[in-house]
Amino acid sequence: MSLIVQKFGGTSVADPERIAAVARRVKGCQQSGDQVIVVVSAMAGETDRLLRLASEVLKNPTGRELDVLLATGEQVTIALLVLALQGLEVTARSFTGAQVQIRTDTAYNKARIVNIESEKICSALNEGNVVVVAGFQGVSEAGDITTLGRGGSDTTAVAIAAALEADECQIYTDVEGVYTTDPRLVAEARRLDRITYEEMLEMASLGAKVLQIRSVEFASKYRVALRVLSSFEEGPGTLITSEENIMEEALLSGVTLNRDEAKLTMLGVPDRPGVASTILGPVAEANIEVDMILQNMGADGMTDFTFTVHRSDFDATMSILEHISDELGARAVEGDNKIAKISVVGVGMRSHAGIASRVFAALAREAINIQMISTSEIKISIVVDEKYSELGVRTLHSEFKLEQA
Amino acid sequence: MSLIVQKFGGTSVADPERIAAVARRVKGCQQSGDQVIVVVSAMAGETDRLLRLASEVLKNPTGRELDVLLATGEQVTIALLVLALQGLEVTARSFTGAQVQIRTDTAYNKARIVNIESEKICSALNEGNVVVVAGFQGVSEAGDITTLGRGGSDTTAVAIAAALEADECQIYTDVEGVYTTDPRLVAEARRLDRITYEEMLEMASLGAKVLQIRSVEFASKYRVALRVLSSFEEGPGTLITSEENIMEEALLSGVTLNRDEAKLTMLGVPDRPGVASTILGPVAEANIEVDMILQNMGADGMTDFTFTVHRSDFDATMSILEHISDELGARAVEGDNKIAKISVVGVGMRSHAGIASRVFAALAREAINIQMISTSEIKISIVVDEKYSELGVRTLHSEFKLEQA
Repeated sequence: MSLIVQKFGGTSVADPERIAAVARRVKGCQQSGDQVIVVVSAMAGETDRLLRLASEVLKNPTGRELDVLLATGEQVTIALLVLALQGLEVTARSFTGAQVQIRTDTAYNKARIVNIESEKICSALNEGNVVVVAGFQGVSEAGDITTLGRGGSDTTAVAIAAALEADECQIYTDVEGVYTTDPRLVAEARRLDRITYEEMLEMASLGAKVLQIRSVEFASKYRVALRVLSSFEEGPGTLITSEENIMEEALLSGVTLNRDEAKLTMLGVPDRPGVASTILGPVAEANIEVDMILQNMGADGMTDFTFTVHRSDFDATMSILEHISDELGARAVEGDNKIAKISVVGVGMRSHAGIASRVFAALAREAINIQMISTSEIKISIVVDEKYSELGVRTLHSEFKLEQA
Repeated sequence: MSLIVQKFGGTSVADPERIAAVARRVKGCQQSGDQVIVVVSAMAGETDRLLRLASEVLKNPTGRELDVLLATGEQVTIALLVLALQGLEVTARSFTGAQVQIRTDTAYNKARIVNIESEKICSALNEGNVVVVAGFQGVSEAGDITTLGRGGSDTTAVAIAAALEADECQIYTDVEGVYTTDPRLVAEARRLDRITYEEMLEMASLGAKVLQIRSVEFASKYRVALRVLSSFEEGPGTLITSEENIMEEALLSGVTLNRDEAKLTMLGVPDRPGVASTILGPVAEANIEVDMILQNMGADGMTDFTFTVHRSDFDATMSILEHISDELGARAVEGDNKIAKISVVGVGMRSHAGIASRVFAALAREAINIQMISTSEIKISIVVDEKYSELGVRTLHSEFKLEQA
């Protein structure tokens, strides 16, 4: 008998019909002899409805009361799912975050899980129940309701799987698994059977929106076997696991595309210590996150300083740079919000040299100009003109034969 | 400084605009120097929406999970009201039934309050907060969410007022108070300044749907000063209190009308012991509540047995009677679902004789035939043909000069 945690997101429980479908799937898993814990999100659209109500009584609602409000979304789903299971003659029991004691800190709206009491869940399982837990929410030491921030239900599922040492944590989504690249861009994109936590983290942070980054970090830290699979189709999905569980490593696992960034350059800055912090300090103070940073060695003691931010922060960042440009004695400020970041990811890079040069050569053959380069141990990211997005992804996907298993 | 509990029902918090209006009213109360605890219901329509969702996943949902579902309705309102108060720069804090520890038994869907912990509320009040509590819900000893059944928010408010020894429990509704009779029937109907618990209980059970009966019972038991007033209009409302707090007793407080009953008669039943239970036993077994019961002494050892039930149970009750009529050797079964019950209520009846004869004489002057009579210490109810409903109420209202203070 295995212990399985299954997590269903908002679209999987969007209406009573889909909730009934989830109930049937859960029943199937239990009938095959496993113990099942189900973690659910709010029904699709519900969180937005609640946020809209809140913003009608107070501009920019935040803090403790917003969490009291939002936590109702998942509470509705757990009750409906248990009722649906009862209709299938499956005994089941729901728990809110406060009832399980998913203990978090008090950072309302983006709390972090501190501890999970396994006692209530265990005894409900041992009484033969399917246990249905509200995702996304927890409770502080003082008994206040907290939420983990958007997508937090994935984290709830992984944290419960870790606390109860589950055999597998299954994340049901609207895709059939993790792909070598976005199938809408490249028809040959292939579902991966397995991928390492590290690769998944790079893929997720680079724009493959299958899983919440935090949940993958959590899974990696506690070695939880994480499987991404479709709510709507049958299939094995993709298992995310540690490197030692993957027999033969592929060179690369995937190519990702991120069109959400913009690039800013301060030209002709005097090349002296502290220039980076003079530029990026005010940007950080404005709560703008910086992704890639590039500083060219310049001639004549001058340098060009380039970095990328989220595209929605482009205008604000431009104003900041223009404001500090005189102070720094910079020659000019340039910006470009029509860029794309393409990345190749794979733990195989560690043991294989020459990946970078193959990336550059393949792009050169298609006359795609590279604007920025950034690398990590298992990833190479390049920034190109946005118009080369699809061509760049296809070129690299084919260069590394990712369509072949 | 007084401690005031204010309860706002579903129509008073039906949308963000009305919630904002409630927030302004609460702020006014706090600014006049009082400590305020607010109890709110789910937004109008929300409980029905949740019930509809539940019935789409399971026919006839009941039990633990239904309460998990329904409790979200009030949780949404408490959060929205606190956010609205924050917008008016009033510091406030919300509590669910589980957070306050409104401890109930485990009779899901219709739980009864066992105890209320006052600690959390008191400390939040002493920190200068308006305290906003979810009505209608509680928590069992095991930590399971319970609800008190429809209208339970009134009971929550009164129970909190009792537990914290509040100076007054104000129930805000869509009427301006308790009237001598329904103002839609009698234009001269007058708002009562004060009324006793007992009178209010008789009025409520007789069809004046201002307050939940249970909350009045609770208020009476714990001597909570209860005030009914309008959410939408300014005004003193009606204070419901104990008899010793009412200086000069009126003869009568009100005339009520109930058109929800039907009358059934079994004619020519042998007049022997046990006949009432033979007739009413099967009715009780079918979960049909009987209101008035009348057995006439008959001639020749025969009797007629008449009783009333809720109009919606009329057909079912007729079938039962027809079924047992042969067994009893009854002559015939008659039914009438076009009746009305008119009642006059007043603690003054205790010390004044002759009320009943004035009722009968007044109705006789209008040629209204009386079909049944039932009395209690502070009430006289009569059943008449439904067509005399309005005339009967107006006649009695005017006979006892209820339009005059």
